[in-house]
Amino acid sequence: MARTPLSGTALDALKLALGRERPGLSLETDQDVCASYAGDESDVAPAVPDLVVRAKSQADVVATLRVANERRVPVTPRAAGTGKSGGCVPIEGGIVLSLEGMRDIVEIDREDAIAVVEPGVVTAQLHEAVEALGLFYAPDPNSLATCTIGGNVAENAAGPRTYKYGVTRDWVLGLTIVTADGSVLELGTRTHKGVTGYDLCSLMVGSEGTLGVVTRATLRLAPKAEGIVTLVALLTSSSQIATSVAKLAANGISARCLELFDERTLDLVRADAPFPIPPATRALLLVELDGDTASLERAMERAGGLLTDAGAEVLVAQGGSDRERLWAVRRELSRALRRSARAKISEDVVVPRGHLGALIDASARIGERHGLRSASYGHAGDGNLHVNFLWDDPADVPRVRAALEDLFGEVMAMRGTLSGEHGIGASKSAWLEREQAPSVIEIQRQLKRVFDPNGILNPGKIFAPRAHGSC
Amino acid sequence: MARTPLSGTALDALKLALGRERPGLSLETDQDVCASYAGDESDVAPAVPDLVVRAKSQADVVATLRVANERRVPVTPRAAGTGKSGGCVPIEGGIVLSLEGMRDIVEIDREDAIAVVEPGVVTAQLHEAVEALGLFYAPDPNSLATCTIGGNVAENAAGPRTYKYGVTRDWVLGLTIVTADGSVLELGTRTHKGVTGYDLCSLMVGSEGTLGVVTRATLRLAPKAEGIVTLVALLTSSSQIATSVAKLAANGISARCLELFDERTLDLVRADAPFPIPPATRALLLVELDGDTASLERAMERAGGLLTDAGAEVLVAQGGSDRERLWAVRRELSRALRRSARAKISEDVVVPRGHLGALIDASARIGERHGLRSASYGHAGDGNLHVNFLWDDPADVPRVRAALEDLFGEVMAMRGTLSGEHGIGASKSAWLEREQAPSVIEIQRQLKRVFDPNGILNPGKIFAPRAHGSC
Repeated sequence: MARTPLSGTALDALKLALGRERPGLSLETDQDVCASYAGDESDVAPAVPDLVVRAKSQADVVATLRVANERRVPVTPRAAGTGKSGGCVPIEGGIVLSLEGMRDIVEIDREDAIAVVEPGVVTAQLHEAVEALGLFYAPDPNSLATCTIGGNVAENAAGPRTYKYGVTRDWVLGLTIVTADGSVLELGTRTHKGVTGYDLCSLMVGSEGTLGVVTRATLRLAPKAEGIVTLVALLTSSSQIATSVAKLAANGISARCLELFDERTLDLVRADAPFPIPPATRALLLVELDGDTASLERAMERAGGLLTDAGAEVLVAQGGSDRERLWAVRRELSRALRRSARAKISEDVVVPRGHLGALIDASARIGERHGLRSASYGHAGDGNLHVNFLWDDPADVPRVRAALEDLFGEVMAMRGTLSGEHGIGASKSAWLEREQAPSVIEIQRQLKRVFDPNGILNPGKIFAPRAHGSC
Repeated sequence: MARTPLSGTALDALKLALGRERPGLSLETDQDVCASYAGDESDVAPAVPDLVVRAKSQADVVATLRVANERRVPVTPRAAGTGKSGGCVPIEGGIVLSLEGMRDIVEIDREDAIAVVEPGVVTAQLHEAVEALGLFYAPDPNSLATCTIGGNVAENAAGPRTYKYGVTRDWVLGLTIVTADGSVLELGTRTHKGVTGYDLCSLMVGSEGTLGVVTRATLRLAPKAEGIVTLVALLTSSSQIATSVAKLAANGISARCLELFDERTLDLVRADAPFPIPPATRALLLVELDGDTASLERAMERAGGLLTDAGAEVLVAQGGSDRERLWAVRRELSRALRRSARAKISEDVVVPRGHLGALIDASARIGERHGLRSASYGHAGDGNLHVNFLWDDPADVPRVRAALEDLFGEVMAMRGTLSGEHGIGASKSAWLEREQAPSVIEIQRQLKRVFDPNGILNPGKIFAPRAHGSC
């Protein structure tokens, strides 16, 4: 949908109305400031908003939405801007509503095993705060050092620990949200269990800011594990990845992470790895276990034995600093790939677990077929592969598009899904119909209208724009 | 809402239309047959439907809903009828749509770690089938020997293992549902992870048959644990329950079940228990651990030590048959209580974990205050207590009502929730407004209208009937 910037007069009137509704509201129309809220970490083209509102409180959010709704001005909520699908890119202009200033950890209750936080709390800061009390919050998206809980909730973020501990949705007990007209709704519970009415809280998680703006989240906490052990399995072929993962699962090894690096990814990280990676190594599996110290020892031995049987050379990360170096390499992968070419696109497809090996092979084959460099890494236990296509010449873009068509075609044939953790956003909305029937998409559009009848909340996301209408 | 039976002419016309839409559809209007579909295991007054349709296939469900929707005839889906909140009681008459004949386990895929089942599959049969393959499906409602997956999905059923493994929603990856107008929607994924569009699948789980009828469910499976150990902690006061539970949690003991029996419940089961319960024992905690054999041994010792420190005498269930006897006693509790009085009401409240002790005390106090016998048992780890009030004289009913008012008041003051696993159904719809704001209820009513504009699906459930309108 074409973005029409607000005229100077319309923008002045909007600012006036916002100031009247909420005196002291932080409004920014400076072009440089607005430009810094234009993009995220995806390949979606940045779009500069007309206005940035920096919310400091729920009342700021209510005022902004009330005025924007009355005037039919698009509002794109945003926290840290680390998303991978353009979820916070204001593609239809209007207001970016920044939540990064709402960053209080309101409460951590050890007895109730919950945390209550504002949307701008950085995920790693929450980890640190709860772990200091012997507690644990599992979701660990790759960007955890900078991303925030608000964005994690909007995208239903996951991460390496998802294999054992589930996604963000599994850790959200309650949400306070503001809907498009400025109404405040308290959803979910403070309890760890509850079936009162429809699960609006789960509906909200992963709705990418299209149904409401989260101003507070009640999160479930678990006891922190006594210890962690990290193994690295060096494999001589990509095909050993799937067999190793299947072997561990079949033997009931409940790893908390099972991260894979394919051959092309490995080549990129060889120099930075905290241990020598022999040239014969063509794939790598990072296996992390947690639990109490005594059982960890045995689990490590069992996992190591199974991996060795599967043909791997197995290394054990000695001590915390080795682990940290290993994870630093893993977390840097996306950026390392980006540096290795002028352009890249990173997909986030998932297939049923048994098809992991086939997906790795298919991804490599598709890259070759279209003459593109490709590299894959991801969450092997979940069947979730980040397939990257890399290119230098802008003339290659049609080939990238064709490669993506093939990739999604393969994934659909394997009965997989388009996105495991990045969301649909603006980057994959054109593909939604490849996975979901028109009737399923239509029901979602109708639910969207219940929460946001005028279509002002993050328009153009998830659902491809239609010829008419705004949602 | 007053139930108006269909006239003979209307009923004949309905049967004719159903037969025309789907020749061979199994229709029952015999009064005795219809009467056998009138009630469930709650205290909601049974209501005899006008007609029972016994679906054998999805096409039967589609045909029934299409015709019923055109004619605005209520349809109440039902599987085994083991619900505890009147969810399948056809309080507005019309059709009971029985799914008990759709009982195929369509597929168990070890590699993908999923099962695909029809709604009439009995939960325990699914357990048996997947466990024979070394796999595990966690949800274990008390009625598992007779209840079905369709009902479990409708109510988002839980059970003792929820403490470690979550509720039904956490195990449902995908659903095929038929909406009120007979449309078939495929929701969710076959993958263990996915964020494509809104989570309609989670919205459907726990919606109590008011949004659609499930005809197929894709369920997540996990590896079966190597071993199980069951401990019984004999306590000398109810207050030790909460302290024991807190002690285990604080020490990172990840029990799979933490079931509590209060003093009054214990008195009922003394005779049937598989071991002598000393008179000094005034409360009991059943602690079950699972894992690999080596770590189980240590976990058992640690848990036993912590419980002993908390003042408990600890017994270990020796072998499978002791475990089974113990669980038989636990599973029989509801019926044993029912036999002990002419009438009982069983509540299903949940409080934040730290308030468990206060809730146990409050429940006993409320019973005393209103001169009612009370007994509580439940899922201690989840803060989920089944509070029972027992009475013999029908004249006591107003006192029971007053006791429930007090109980819900206490639960709300502790920031708890009305139902942990039984659902709202018809039995608690009048209380919904105690927990949720009118705006939150109104949003749910609007979502209901998206799926079921004519309000034919299980009318009168969750939401209290309004003066006008049917949903």
